[in-house]
Amino acid sequence: MSEKGVILLSGGLDSATVLAYAIKKGFQLTALTFNYGQRHSRENNSARDIASRYGIDLKEAKINLSDLIESSLTGYGNVEHRRLADIESRIPNTYVPARNIIMISIAAGLCQTIEASTIFIGANALDYSGYPDCRPEFFNSMEQSINIGTGSDGKDRIRIEVPLQYLRKSEIINMGIKLNVPYELTWSCYEGGDEACGMCDSCQLRLRGFMEAGVHDPIKYSKYPEFYKK
Amino acid sequence: MSEKGVILLSGGLDSATVLAYAIKKGFQLTALTFNYGQRHSRENNSARDIASRYGIDLKEAKINLSDLIESSLTGYGNVEHRRLADIESRIPNTYVPARNIIMISIAAGLCQTIEASTIFIGANALDYSGYPDCRPEFFNSMEQSINIGTGSDGKDRIRIEVPLQYLRKSEIINMGIKLNVPYELTWSCYEGGDEACGMCDSCQLRLRGFMEAGVHDPIKYSKYPEFYKK
Repeated sequence: MSEKGVILLSGGLDSATVLAYAIKKGFQLTALTFNYGQRHSRENNSARDIASRYGIDLKEAKINLSDLIESSLTGYGNVEHRRLADIESRIPNTYVPARNIIMISIAAGLCQTIEASTIFIGANALDYSGYPDCRPEFFNSMEQSINIGTGSDGKDRIRIEVPLQYLRKSEIINMGIKLNVPYELTWSCYEGGDEACGMCDSCQLRLRGFMEAGVHDPIKYSKYPEFYKK
Repeated sequence: MSEKGVILLSGGLDSATVLAYAIKKGFQLTALTFNYGQRHSRENNSARDIASRYGIDLKEAKINLSDLIESSLTGYGNVEHRRLADIESRIPNTYVPARNIIMISIAAGLCQTIEASTIFIGANALDYSGYPDCRPEFFNSMEQSINIGTGSDGKDRIRIEVPLQYLRKSEIINMGIKLNVPYELTWSCYEGGDEACGMCDSCQLRLRGFMEAGVHDPIKYSKYPEFYKK
C-alpha cells in the first residue's frame, strides 16, 4: 500500500503544484483546506475543484479566525497594494498571525488519525511576502514540535515536506506545467472578486512568475500591473 | 500598564486555577476557550461562567475537529473507563491528536494580535492521562516554534507558562483554595451529562485530588469510584 500524506491545499498555484508533485511521488493524498473567514474564501472552491480533478479526498477545516486574529485577510482593513519592488521590504497587512502554525497543527492531528507520514505544504521563501512562518527554520522547528506533541518519535514520525521552499515562482510554474497542473482552476488573489485583482502581492508575484516562465496565465485578471507584458 | 496574557481556559479545574494564579501575578488576561465538537461542550459554559466571575474577556475558537480528528472526545466511540491504577499504563481513547498543539497555535496568533507576552496553560504531567502534548519537552519545543513562526524573536518573544506542570492534583487544589478559585463553576468530566460521571479518567483524577487535599469537591457526581471516601 502506498504511503499516505496530507496536503495543505489552499487552492492557489503553489499548493496545486505540490499536490501534483506528491502524487507523482506515489503518495496517497488527503487534501486539507481551511475556511478561516478569509476574504478570498473563493480559494476554497478552487481547492475543491483541484481535489476533485485529481480524485482525492478533501477535508475542510472551519475555524473562526476572523473573530480572533487580525489581518487584512480576516476582515481588518483593506489588502494593501504595493509595488513589486517593495514586497521584500517588510511584512504586509495580509500577514495572518500564526496561520501556518495553526494549519500544520491541524494537519498533524489528521496525520495521526489517518496514519499519514507526511504533511506537504506549498510554502516558499523566495518569491513570497516575507511571512515569518514560511521560513525554513520555522518548518524545522515545527516538525520537531508536532512529533513530540503527538508522541510520534519512532517509526511513526511525521515529516513536513516543503518541496517549493527554494524555488522561484517561475521555476514552480515550469515544474507545474511539466506535471500538467490545471492552473486554470487555481486562485491566488487575496481579494474575493470575480476576477483576480492583479494588484495584491499574490497576484503580482504570480504574474511575474508566469511572465518569467514564458507561459500564459490561464486565469482572468481585472487589471494588470505595470511591469506585466503578455 | 500591566502585562497581557492569554489563558487557555477549558472550564476545568486546572485551567481555572491557572487563571487565578495569573491574575494574582498581575496579568491582564484574555481567556481563550475551544469549541471543537467535544462531547463535553458543557465545559465551554463553565469557561464562560469562570471568565465572567473574574470579569475578563473571553474569546471562543470554533473548530470542526470532530470532522477531522478521531478521539472518543470528538464522537468516535465511547469514553473508556478504567481503574485509576491503570491510568498511567497507556494513552487512552480520550486522547485528541494534536489538541494542545492546535490550541497553542491559535493562542499564539491571538497573542500577536493583542500584543500579549504569555500563553498560560493548565497542563500537568503528574496526575494526568499520559497525553504526549502535556509533557514538558513539548512545551519547550512549541515555544520555540511559535516564536520563529510569528517572527517574535526579539523583545516581543511569546512565553508558554505551564505553572501546574510539576504539581500533583491535590497540590493544585490546595493552591486553588488559597486563591479562592470558584471550583463549583468548573467542569472536568469527559461525558456531557447533567452531573459528572465519576468514572472517566478526568473525574477520578479530580476526586482523588480533592480526597488527598482533604477538601470537599463542590460539584455533583452521579456515581463515585470505589476508592473515593468523602
